[in-house]
Amino acid sequence: MAIEGRDDIAGRPIRLGMVGGGRDAFIGAVHRIASRIDGHFQLVAGAFSSTAEKSKASGRDLGLPDDRVYGDFTEMAKREARFKQGIEAVAIVTPNHMHYPVAREFLKRGIHVICDKPLTATLADARKLVNLAEKSDALFVLTHNYTGYPMVRQARQMVADGDVGTIRLVQAEYPQDWLAEPLEATGMKQAAWRTDPDKSGAGGSTGDIGTHALNLALFVSGLELSELAADLDSFVPGRRVDDNAHVMLRFAGGAKGTLWSSQVAPGNENALRLRIYGDKGGLEWSQEDPNYLWFTPLGEPKRLITRNGAGAGEAAGRVSRVPPGHPEGYLEGFANIYTEAAHAIRARAAGETPDPAVIHPTVRDGLVGVAFVDACVRSSRRNAAWTKLAI
Amino acid sequence: MAIEGRDDIAGRPIRLGMVGGGRDAFIGAVHRIASRIDGHFQLVAGAFSSTAEKSKASGRDLGLPDDRVYGDFTEMAKREARFKQGIEAVAIVTPNHMHYPVAREFLKRGIHVICDKPLTATLADARKLVNLAEKSDALFVLTHNYTGYPMVRQARQMVADGDVGTIRLVQAEYPQDWLAEPLEATGMKQAAWRTDPDKSGAGGSTGDIGTHALNLALFVSGLELSELAADLDSFVPGRRVDDNAHVMLRFAGGAKGTLWSSQVAPGNENALRLRIYGDKGGLEWSQEDPNYLWFTPLGEPKRLITRNGAGAGEAAGRVSRVPPGHPEGYLEGFANIYTEAAHAIRARAAGETPDPAVIHPTVRDGLVGVAFVDACVRSSRRNAAWTKLAI
Amino acid sequence: MAIEGRDDIAGRPIRLGMVGGGRDAFIGAVHRIASRIDGHFQLVAGAFSSTAEKSKASGRDLGLPDDRVYGDFTEMAKREARFKQGIEAVAIVTPNHMHYPVAREFLKRGIHVICDKPLTATLADARKLVNLAEKSDALFVLTHNYTGYPMVRQARQMVADGDVGTIRLVQAEYPQDWLAEPLEATGMKQAAWRTDPDKSGAGGSTGDIGTHALNLALFVSGLELSELAADLDSFVPGRRVDDNAHVMLRFAGGAKGTLWSSQVAPGNENALRLRIYGDKGGLEWSQEDPNYLWFTPLGEPKRLITRNGAGAGEAAGRVSRVPPGHPEGYLEGFANIYTEAAHAIRARAAGETPDPAVIHPTVRDGLVGVAFVDACVRSSRRNAAWTKLAI
Amino acid sequence: MAIEGRDDIAGRPIRLGMVGGGRDAFIGAVHRIASRIDGHFQLVAGAFSSTAEKSKASGRDLGLPDDRVYGDFTEMAKREARFKQGIEAVAIVTPNHMHYPVAREFLKRGIHVICDKPLTATLADARKLVNLAEKSDALFVLTHNYTGYPMVRQARQMVADGDVGTIRLVQAEYPQDWLAEPLEATGMKQAAWRTDPDKSGAGGSTGDIGTHALNLALFVSGLELSELAADLDSFVPGRRVDDNAHVMLRFAGGAKGTLWSSQVAPGNENALRLRIYGDKGGLEWSQEDPNYLWFTPLGEPKRLITRNGAGAGEAAGRVSRVPPGHPEGYLEGFANIYTEAAHAIRARAAGETPDPAVIHPTVRDGLVGVAFVDACVRSSRRNAAWTKLAI
Repeated sequence: MAIEGRDDIAGRPIRLGMVGGGRDAFIGAVHRIASRIDGHFQLVAGAFSSTAEKSKASGRDLGLPDDRVYGDFTEMAKREARFKQGIEAVAIVTPNHMHYPVAREFLKRGIHVICDKPLTATLADARKLVNLAEKSDALFVLTHNYTGYPMVRQARQMVADGDVGTIRLVQAEYPQDWLAEPLEATGMKQAAWRTDPDKSGAGGSTGDIGTHALNLALFVSGLELSELAADLDSFVPGRRVDDNAHVMLRFAGGAKGTLWSSQVAPGNENALRLRIYGDKGGLEWSQEDPNYLWFTPLGEPKRLITRNGAGAGEAAGRVSRVPPGHPEGYLEGFANIYTEAAHAIRARAAGETPDPAVIHPTVRDGLVGVAFVDACVRSSRRNAAWTKLAI
Repeated sequence: MAIEGRDDIAGRPIRLGMVGGGRDAFIGAVHRIASRIDGHFQLVAGAFSSTAEKSKASGRDLGLPDDRVYGDFTEMAKREARFKQGIEAVAIVTPNHMHYPVAREFLKRGIHVICDKPLTATLADARKLVNLAEKSDALFVLTHNYTGYPMVRQARQMVADGDVGTIRLVQAEYPQDWLAEPLEATGMKQAAWRTDPDKSGAGGSTGDIGTHALNLALFVSGLELSELAADLDSFVPGRRVDDNAHVMLRFAGGAKGTLWSSQVAPGNENALRLRIYGDKGGLEWSQEDPNYLWFTPLGEPKRLITRNGAGAGEAAGRVSRVPPGHPEGYLEGFANIYTEAAHAIRARAAGETPDPAVIHPTVRDGLVGVAFVDACVRSSRRNAAWTKLAI
Repeated sequence: MAIEGRDDIAGRPIRLGMVGGGRDAFIGAVHRIASRIDGHFQLVAGAFSSTAEKSKASGRDLGLPDDRVYGDFTEMAKREARFKQGIEAVAIVTPNHMHYPVAREFLKRGIHVICDKPLTATLADARKLVNLAEKSDALFVLTHNYTGYPMVRQARQMVADGDVGTIRLVQAEYPQDWLAEPLEATGMKQAAWRTDPDKSGAGGSTGDIGTHALNLALFVSGLELSELAADLDSFVPGRRVDDNAHVMLRFAGGAKGTLWSSQVAPGNENALRLRIYGDKGGLEWSQEDPNYLWFTPLGEPKRLITRNGAGAGEAAGRVSRVPPGHPEGYLEGFANIYTEAAHAIRARAAGETPDPAVIHPTVRDGLVGVAFVDACVRSSRRNAAWTKLAI
Repeated sequence: MAIEGRDDIAGRPIRLGMVGGGRDAFIGAVHRIASRIDGHFQLVAGAFSSTAEKSKASGRDLGLPDDRVYGDFTEMAKREARFKQGIEAVAIVTPNHMHYPVAREFLKRGIHVICDKPLTATLADARKLVNLAEKSDALFVLTHNYTGYPMVRQARQMVADGDVGTIRLVQAEYPQDWLAEPLEATGMKQAAWRTDPDKSGAGGSTGDIGTHALNLALFVSGLELSELAADLDSFVPGRRVDDNAHVMLRFAGGAKGTLWSSQVAPGNENALRLRIYGDKGGLEWSQEDPNYLWFTPLGEPKRLITRNGAGAGEAAGRVSRVPPGHPEGYLEGFANIYTEAAHAIRARAAGETPDPAVIHPTVRDGLVGVAFVDACVRSSRRNAAWTKLAI
């Protein structure tokens, strides 16, 4: 029942640049807010659009001086790398097909990369990026932001502590409804690139939200996915990528699961949900009500564990800011990824190993996600045959 | 906002017998209460156990005279058929493998049968029973009781009225946790026969609760199942039938779905849930909170429709008894099946066609359920290959 | 995790009569269903209306022979008392002002009375009825039906067991919305008599639902009400009784509380809710979701106790019929009062003391309710001055 | 179903100072995060503690240079007022009794004040502060942060638009459980000053959370409070201020209400809840699930309006950042107050009138809150007699 707050800024903010995220973007604004919440970053440069004029306009909206705003990300990487006060890290918030080429320019100049998901549009790019990132001195952080929610951390810790016993079942779902109609035909930018396989990759719902659901499932369960059987559909006439996926999962060790991603389920906004059942108990979590974690020890009443409340531990507490009953949300969860990145960047700068509690999704997690999309598409083409991830 | 109540007894109660349902039984007591709620039936005879002494003891518990209590169902059928005041209908609440032999004895003597689900333990028996029932003058009612819930009726009517448009997705699940441990090894009777393939059939969770979920999905959606891909597991060591099933569904016309049945998901009691999504809206219903139906017309706020409340129509109202806000439950839903059976029996007795609003699950619905279990088992043995129902 | 069902009929049904409850009535039908659910009663006679013809018509609806259907309750009492197979108990479901005169006729002839609430329309009648009932050999049972809900029994037991420690706070509320408009002006019968002080008594919402909320609060808490301060309103123009009441409560021993009854709160159907907080824990229960009881031991996570589920005890179990996760509702809770009455009647017939677990609301509880209405009205007239119950 | 994000930074951040909010504080950290989220403010100075050394240490935690960190707020006001790049606004996050003396020093030097609630510890101070603030060129913003929640704005707009008709009832409650035990006796700082009348004022729960509940009720309803009747308690032995308050409310025009504040209700974290009922509909909102607003038009099904979702309008949209289904929380709601303050400060600097959509709690709202506490205390001393606010 502590009611102390927390903001643990220490030292000067890390200088951040951004590629993508101009006007009309969704996730760029989210990254900017997330980077500010805990005060660890300061946005100082950007290539917000490939059109120089648009990029400058976005930069001015954000209070940046023109000379730190670029129309070309390669130019940005080159110049910022030369500045004494150049950016130390870059946030990549472009459509998926640009993640790899942009990341490459910054990674090879030793600038840390914080990249939106999925990692890349193609498996080939994903492999190249893994290779590049693992050789680089710079850090690569993937914003599978749902792993930043405190109660997701709590769930992961409880699984690791054996609170549910041996896991038997992992049920993950992420239904939405915003693409129930052919929004891409209206010119709506967010819909257009997400349904264009050249920009988003071969997966539609699988890539955009299915990767989130899978990442969450693996993060919390600690399991490794062995194979999957996927039945993909494009329910909206003319749609070029899947807008619904039913996926059966088999994990190493014998656990089973299902994953459902959908963009055509009316009444669902961002209804990401994870349920994990073991031989000793069950855990249930919903993204839309993220401050609650339901835990049932087998044979006992269900318990409602709240963020920072009774029953919640340090894994959740270290990424919380306010007392229980004061909800933290999507942006705070996202900010936790940025803050973990800041901890890792500062440790690296100091030549130290970060505190083992510091966790963030990596380029390898990104590869798993892209391989998942690839496997879903391959499985579905073979009438939902069981398919292994090509990692 | 009407607050009138309703109980529509008319005329003398129908004389009812019961086979099965002695001491320690679960569903026998449920059938007895359900048969009493609306006053349409009166229990007058029974073969509650195959041991005559036990049967008599159960009969005495229920206030029946010894001479109407039998140790042998065939004897019961024979004698009751001869009595002037003999039973007009029989409720069969034995383990699954006995449904067919018991039903046969009564049907062939023109006694109406109200039979628990699944229809039979084997597909062969199911086919024989369909044959028999369809030739008989007597009525055959299967107690897929969830179709008796008023808000399930409401959902079905809304689908039929086009409120969700063309259905794209049907998500059905029925998780429980009561068999998460090897309860059958403790001698617990309910667990023992349900996990014995000779008594329950080849399916475990698929037969016991998966058939309920499927029946509900088909009842509400009005769709026909084309094929399925099933991954069955027996997570509890030594268990002889599935205790978890992941099933992908394909419906005639292109809709897709999933069905999950489980008896090993801690924190789930009887968490039967149905979600249907079309191109114009979505519907969501949960058995544990049965008086609520969630309806989202695409692009509008979610609406909570309550039994007998604003927004609920006649399909729900005709099977409701009390005003909105006074919950009706499992027993009332079950009683609605009995009351529908009474309407049908009385119409038949009068040589009339029942009111078209009278609906109850039939022997054909039962065949679909048994074929579903059979298809799940066959699919799972072929590594979850797509399998058609053998109807 | 037991899944056995329960129906504990024993011996022949008790012969029941009814006064009131003809066509258009609400609570009469509820009483009839409740009396049937557990098989302890059989309706054999009635005076359903003071118009003989209407009464006969209602009787025929219910399958009663004309010679057991009366247009006059006094005649009914006299004749039934003389029959060898006359009624043993009578259910009184008339408007409030008739409870006393009707009860008197049956009590004085030794016929047990099961009477709807509030006890009477006036405090004078209530006192007379207490006097009469306490002198009679016959039993008097008041249907404050919410005390029949299993999780209400569970809550009461937990309070008695000290699970919440010393009670500090009792918050009771019962909002509805069905009288938000002047329904009585439309001729709607249920609204008409409930808003007519000659028939319902001086209280409107206080009498019709406030007495339920108070009875529930006292039943669960075990506290005694010392005094109250009430602010009553009739928001609907022309309404002659209160349709909203704000009441502050003080209990013997120092606990405090509030009670809110309303018939003009749009979005509330029968949202009766009780919250009890002690120095060691809290309990929360809602009538619209009656199978759930929320328990928070101070400093621990909130727990969801379900009817017959893990954490629920014998107090709830003995009034439950089906396994957890299969909701029981309003009618089953109501039936529990009838079944308790049956236990008490049979014990009395046998000259035995009933099992101490048998509990039902008494004529004294009814007096408290009527005194509560009286105190609310008096307090409100004195500008919500603190007022003691005139018991 | 738009999924664009939003962050509307424009121009350079406003230079912000802070008084209070050192290590161990709760609300100071909240203010700092809130001030950063939208990028409108930059913290550049502070007097975080009255002990210079502690203040410096806190300043260093926050990355501030020592020469902008003070041990004395008067010195801070004087020096910062003289700097060319001195603070433009100050956040006051001290215990209540210091709000007035601190605000005075900054207001009289033309520095804008963003002050935590309640306004002051005494009514005398509140009146002086109103006087001072209204004469000052500087802006005074009170952080009744719950009015920053988008769905609270939505509710207010719907009331103003007549969606609930004429308001009859306003039910506000704010229960907590963190002071259910004598935490102040353990030396816990947050509990200690809040239960010390010299620091918090004469009200305990009334001042700390009751003022929030009242402010929320008035903000949404648009009503004016006429009088109240309050029954205050200090349930925890030795507690010097109220830890529970039952308050009946009467509003100008005839609406009625209740307000319950409690710090001793186990199972409640920050369960602030508002329910408003008019003759045409009802609205319900809970702080712990702030992205949902329940709206029931009388006679229609309940609707769930979500932040930025279908049915939510511009009043909510302009203070939202992310798409529906991605929850915003307490910190974003708090940030909205800071952002409104920034809009107002910039408009004032430009000599313009702010957009009428810009709303923030004022010094007058603060006076109402302090007068509410005062009236509660006076009423309770007179046995809950009706008492008018001394404004």
